[in-house]
Amino acid sequence: MTPEPLRLCIIGLGLMGASLAMAVRSRYPRIVGVARREETAREALARGIVDSATIDFAAGVADADIVVLAAPVRTILRQLRQLPSAARPGAIVTDLGSTKAEIVRAMGELPEGMFAVGSHPMCGKEVTGLDAAEPGLYRGKTWILTRTARTDDVSFTAIRQLAEAAGAVPIELDPARHDALVAFASHLPYSVAVALVMATDRASLDDQAVWQVAASGFRDTSRVAASDVTMMLDILLTNTEAVANAIRDFQFSLDQLAAMLERRDEDGLRAYLAAAAQARRDKVAR
Amino acid sequence: MTPEPLRLCIIGLGLMGASLAMAVRSRYPRIVGVARREETAREALARGIVDSATIDFAAGVADADIVVLAAPVRTILRQLRQLPSAARPGAIVTDLGSTKAEIVRAMGELPEGMFAVGSHPMCGKEVTGLDAAEPGLYRGKTWILTRTARTDDVSFTAIRQLAEAAGAVPIELDPARHDALVAFASHLPYSVAVALVMATDRASLDDQAVWQVAASGFRDTSRVAASDVTMMLDILLTNTEAVANAIRDFQFSLDQLAAMLERRDEDGLRAYLAAAAQARRDKVAR
Repeated sequence: MTPEPLRLCIIGLGLMGASLAMAVRSRYPRIVGVARREETAREALARGIVDSATIDFAAGVADADIVVLAAPVRTILRQLRQLPSAARPGAIVTDLGSTKAEIVRAMGELPEGMFAVGSHPMCGKEVTGLDAAEPGLYRGKTWILTRTARTDDVSFTAIRQLAEAAGAVPIELDPARHDALVAFASHLPYSVAVALVMATDRASLDDQAVWQVAASGFRDTSRVAASDVTMMLDILLTNTEAVANAIRDFQFSLDQLAAMLERRDEDGLRAYLAAAAQARRDKVAR
Repeated sequence: MTPEPLRLCIIGLGLMGASLAMAVRSRYPRIVGVARREETAREALARGIVDSATIDFAAGVADADIVVLAAPVRTILRQLRQLPSAARPGAIVTDLGSTKAEIVRAMGELPEGMFAVGSHPMCGKEVTGLDAAEPGLYRGKTWILTRTARTDDVSFTAIRQLAEAAGAVPIELDPARHDALVAFASHLPYSVAVALVMATDRASLDDQAVWQVAASGFRDTSRVAASDVTMMLDILLTNTEAVANAIRDFQFSLDQLAAMLERRDEDGLRAYLAAAAQARRDKVAR
């Protein structure tokens, strides 16, 4: 059975939403975009990223078969409460949020007759907004799918096909496991980058030249500290426990390194640095 | 007065040494390369990176006007002890080492009649060796110069001109200040990347999928953990105190972040993340 053509509504035309529209434009007969600002709606329409654009949530959602919530996590949680009165019966909702436990719980509370699947495409950039959107953003990237109390086979397949249409590689994870994994793989690196920038900024009060000698190593290690603040705040506040755990584990590792350094344990240090170099080379995908 | 043509000897034909030879090849009449292995010497010669190549330190150094020590820091310290019996009177020595206090002290103990200037070009890659060398490695990069007890105007100018010939931007710093600055700008990011990889590797014992969900954020933040272990070990062991200080300052920042997270201090967190994002955008050179 081939799926019937599905009308898509994307709520949020920032980097993630607009890139998704561009990526799947040819695969869905009609894509409606809902922006927060008139200007963004006009621009998305003018650039042919969507078939129609509005700032009216209820109007945009009204006849959609699939509703994609592309916003910061706590905005998604609010939008999930607005959906039941706006969406048509049988509509399938998904999101592009970076934490899943709270969203999946809220999706499970949607009325019967609505369907919902959690999504987290593992991609992004530290720049945001429609202007940064690109059709290739999702290509080859992992797209995590989480089932909810409102997921059936048809809705799961529909969202898996959306991920594939964007060029992503869907994998399924349960929400708690997802949140624990991304705490290490994504929210910890962000927290570490933030602390690195803040510590260096404090050091620059003593000596401004610290920024001048910061080369490519500093640039890479600190890059994600420039991520969108609202997006990251929502992520940290909806994954607090797992991130706090990951930070503690990280601090344990850094304490080990610092202790070997302070007692000049050359053999211990060499083994530690060598293990890190090897894990970085062997286990992190290019 | 135009400087007389200077014969250059580069000790160490890895990434830094071979890239320097390639970068200044046309500006010095004769470049001798000293490699650790026959095979590297032969390859450097075959590829036309140097005019002659040897594995014999004394023979390579014998008639050089400028000797460049391009090796890990503690190897440089050993080579500085070998130099007096091998170099001709009046020779100028410099190095490409990433810490300066210990090297500058050792340079100051060279016999009178020899000259020495400390160098630290702020560039590199996480890959090493002759094969990774490229003539543009130094272009536009900061090259830090440190005076020693064996620096006079002629020797300082000669090494400044070497930096400029490589396309780098020379700036002068005293060695203690240099080491404190790079502890934050370079050795701290490395230590943080190592701890991030080690903590994540430990988490992967519980759930292998952590490596699968690691995306571009993790990749960038952890990149320098793959740096050459011997090079980094020498750096940490010759800058122990400054690096330990920087790690403590960093831990303080990360503790602040974790504390706000655990007490769900939304306003505090937002201000902290916003300050980091702004500093990362405004103060770190692209």
